[in-house]
Amino acid sequence: MTISMYQASVPVFVRTLTNLKGILAKAMVHAQAKKIDDSVLLAARLYPDMFPLARQVQIATDFARGTGARLAGGEPPAFEDSERTFAELVDRIERSLAFLRSLQPGAIDGSEDRSIVRAVRGVPYTFAGIDYLLQFALPNFFFHTTTAYAILRHSGIEIGKTDFIGPLN
Amino acid sequence: MTISMYQASVPVFVRTLTNLKGILAKAMVHAQAKKIDDSVLLAARLYPDMFPLARQVQIATDFARGTGARLAGGEPPAFEDSERTFAELVDRIERSLAFLRSLQPGAIDGSEDRSIVRAVRGVPYTFAGIDYLLQFALPNFFFHTTTAYAILRHSGIEIGKTDFIGPLN
Repeated sequence: MTISMYQASVPVFVRTLTNLKGILAKAMVHAQAKKIDDSVLLAARLYPDMFPLARQVQIATDFARGTGARLAGGEPPAFEDSERTFAELVDRIERSLAFLRSLQPGAIDGSEDRSIVRAVRGVPYTFAGIDYLLQFALPNFFFHTTTAYAILRHSGIEIGKTDFIGPLN
Repeated sequence: MTISMYQASVPVFVRTLTNLKGILAKAMVHAQAKKIDDSVLLAARLYPDMFPLARQVQIATDFARGTGARLAGGEPPAFEDSERTFAELVDRIERSLAFLRSLQPGAIDGSEDRSIVRAVRGVPYTFAGIDYLLQFALPNFFFHTTTAYAILRHSGIEIGKTDFIGPLN
């Protein structure tokens, strides 16, 4: 037995984006209770030249949608990067989840050797599907979802790793 | 075609731990140039009740070794959590890489359905191998490696996402 490209991609993205949605919901409640404007936390960052929270969530959802779409041989729907509230970030995640759930396992399975061209640091790079997923997309996806978590944790939101890992099946 | 449990585990851990080693090496050079004692950065954290840098690296390496070993049907070598310098953290990563590289693909392939019991939040939980890897081990591994990066970035070390993602094959 082996595992399929679908198993190693879409459900992994769905799980962690669902958990991230819960983390943002907790942050929204915290902000309301403390009378912190959403814009303050959406602009929070760990260092002046790092991306702020909103951008981390945008990039994470883009990696999830883009990877699913490209492994299936298509292109993802483009989303405008215009979120200004937690509710809008949650909505972006929900739209991304809906797209991921629309992808058929049969369209992604067998994509190990599919050529996928992406700009990496500004230069076009041709990946085999398996390398695109395991060497590039998953590390990037977890990098940005974890950084979103870290920004909120650093901002005093009461979340823990359990929120990030989520319930087990 | 499909992908194997080995492909989705050991090379993923090896790649990101190798990159983390490079990140710690940059932090070591920075600390020496600025005359910052290693202990200051190893104890740095993003919030008072979060684990500090050294612990993040310890846990990340433990997840990598433990996952590889358990998918292969064994137990990982236990490492003492005693690192006090960047050189010692780098050495822990190197010992973890040597262990990962000693694992035979044939011992891990076919472990999708292997029962793996782990304490999750203090309670024994029985995973199928595929769920252990994709739902638990990879998210935890990337959570702790990214948090280690984030602590150093927040501490002013001049690193970027390229250091985390690393060179592509």
